[in-house]
Amino acid sequence: MERRGAPAVIDCDLHNVVPSVQALFPYLSDYWVDTIRETAFKGAPANFYPANMPTSARPDAAPPDGGPPGSDLATLRAQALDAWGAECGILNCAYAVESIHNPHAAEALARAVNDWQIAEWLDREPRLRASIVVPSHHPDLAAREIERVGGHPGFVQVFLPVRAPAPYGNRRYYPIYEAAVRHGLVVGLHAGGASKLPPTPAGWPSYYSEEWTGMAAIFQSQLLSLVSEGVFDQFPALRVALIEGGWTWLPALLWRFDKEWKGLRREIPWVRRPPSAYIREHVRLTLQPLDAPPDPAHLLQIIDQLGSDELLLFSTDYPHWHFDRPEEALPAGLPDDLRRKILHDNARAFYNLA
Amino acid sequence: MERRGAPAVIDCDLHNVVPSVQALFPYLSDYWVDTIRETAFKGAPANFYPANMPTSARPDAAPPDGGPPGSDLATLRAQALDAWGAECGILNCAYAVESIHNPHAAEALARAVNDWQIAEWLDREPRLRASIVVPSHHPDLAAREIERVGGHPGFVQVFLPVRAPAPYGNRRYYPIYEAAVRHGLVVGLHAGGASKLPPTPAGWPSYYSEEWTGMAAIFQSQLLSLVSEGVFDQFPALRVALIEGGWTWLPALLWRFDKEWKGLRREIPWVRRPPSAYIREHVRLTLQPLDAPPDPAHLLQIIDQLGSDELLLFSTDYPHWHFDRPEEALPAGLPDDLRRKILHDNARAFYNLA
Repeated sequence: MERRGAPAVIDCDLHNVVPSVQALFPYLSDYWVDTIRETAFKGAPANFYPANMPTSARPDAAPPDGGPPGSDLATLRAQALDAWGAECGILNCAYAVESIHNPHAAEALARAVNDWQIAEWLDREPRLRASIVVPSHHPDLAAREIERVGGHPGFVQVFLPVRAPAPYGNRRYYPIYEAAVRHGLVVGLHAGGASKLPPTPAGWPSYYSEEWTGMAAIFQSQLLSLVSEGVFDQFPALRVALIEGGWTWLPALLWRFDKEWKGLRREIPWVRRPPSAYIREHVRLTLQPLDAPPDPAHLLQIIDQLGSDELLLFSTDYPHWHFDRPEEALPAGLPDDLRRKILHDNARAFYNLA
Repeated sequence: MERRGAPAVIDCDLHNVVPSVQALFPYLSDYWVDTIRETAFKGAPANFYPANMPTSARPDAAPPDGGPPGSDLATLRAQALDAWGAECGILNCAYAVESIHNPHAAEALARAVNDWQIAEWLDREPRLRASIVVPSHHPDLAAREIERVGGHPGFVQVFLPVRAPAPYGNRRYYPIYEAAVRHGLVVGLHAGGASKLPPTPAGWPSYYSEEWTGMAAIFQSQLLSLVSEGVFDQFPALRVALIEGGWTWLPALLWRFDKEWKGLRREIPWVRRPPSAYIREHVRLTLQPLDAPPDPAHLLQIIDQLGSDELLLFSTDYPHWHFDRPEEALPAGLPDDLRRKILHDNARAFYNLA
């Protein structure tokens, strides 16, 4: 499965896309199929990014029969797994069930998406793993769905949209973390989501450019919340992946967080170690999108400032388009040892991949 | 005025504090004095930080007569101006008139605070400059107040709380920028504010530690908005200071912003140059709080990554407590030229100080 001369990679961010709500009909009860037909419901918006902009997805990623990029296993297998000699790829299906107010409908669609992932992706391609789609706005239902499918060997992660109605350290989410830990699953926070809240702490921006560039700040808020609320002491086995949120911002956040913790920790005494220690132990970040500086030396400085060579996980974010040639996916000038850790060792250890 | 052997400094963030709403009575009309007495109104909250925590303010900054730290000119003169040999100090009074829903009351209190600043600070101490307090949630009234006092030579800046009900690139704020530019004033975005919105894009956090550490992300959102909305093309003379928001996060933001602008600029065609070019031209950042890394070499890397030696403005954030000894206020190992720029040259040019 490995290209001659190419390194084996573990790709920690592939996107499989539900082509239409009709594709889920085989996995929905008659009640929901009838309801969807009667209401002309189009399904949860599969993505919030402008799907037709040439910057959003590789133009050749749409399948021959005309579905959206990422909706066809054969195309993904050829372009993302075979082309990279991937020993493993982790699917993150961003089907936004959290946008659906009816909790029963949200749960039914999450179940359908997961059964669709099992039948049409995991059971057909042994190199694939996947994230469980859950109604994250109803943690009790999310936990029930994790219990239902968490034992399937193809699932290695629970997908949570980084935009959320409350910070993820909030106690309301504990049922999700309990279920994830019980099944040995990573909790993956992924860019985007339908939280109904403005995507900035100053309210609604006018342009997508602001929203997308500012997504990094939402990841920062979630990290602050997870550590400050003591989630990693409450769930010592919890592992959290930050997916598609960038990472060059991390050193500055760790410095600020550690500094303010020194001054303010009497308020949060359960945070017994510097926040950076929790983050370096429990959190990993996917490589793409790589917010690379013009000067490659600056990127190597940032990597050094991370203070650990175990934090970064290789990802292509396929079929999103972040680079033109495979060799651009990795920063230039990485030492061999770090390169190997990013390409596969870190992911293998973090996701317990055999 | 300069200590022997000490460098002249321009301190771009001093805090003068309204000791009580009664202190504003000489500057309020009978109507408002009567209303405040009849309603037992305590005035806008002067600060949102936990004022009595030892990490918040120097314990010796409270005046002898018992007022809050920062409320007494003689104490501030001795501790912040004389002690540093400051040739100039810029007052930022964080009197949160934006917390007051009644627009007439908000305007009246802003006027009173500014007249109090003129009479009790600026006219008594020639080394002081100050920021105009405005009802920022009502830009028309804010502009009227800038027109009223903007000609006073002591005012060099308009104070805007970084937390706001809408991102500062929004057109609703144009009257403020027009008035500021007309009077040659900097617009200073300062940590904090009573926006009524959650301080994170994921909703309300539980702890002050999260709120304060996450303040850096609000500055990032505001920068994205100001540039993406084209404010710096609309107002080419506009200068914006980011005060008390940290700055080690800036290089990563510039890289991400420039990169996404390349992909998405068709949406915001009025942004004709890379965002980093606008920011390096129009924006400056105060030095404290300094989110310093454990390794001083990393901080020098970040300063290099800023890509300009004109961005940082010396500040003590007096009477807030960020360091124990003056020499800790500046990063170690700065080249002499950069040190001089940070200590005074950058501020002198940016604020047009004689």
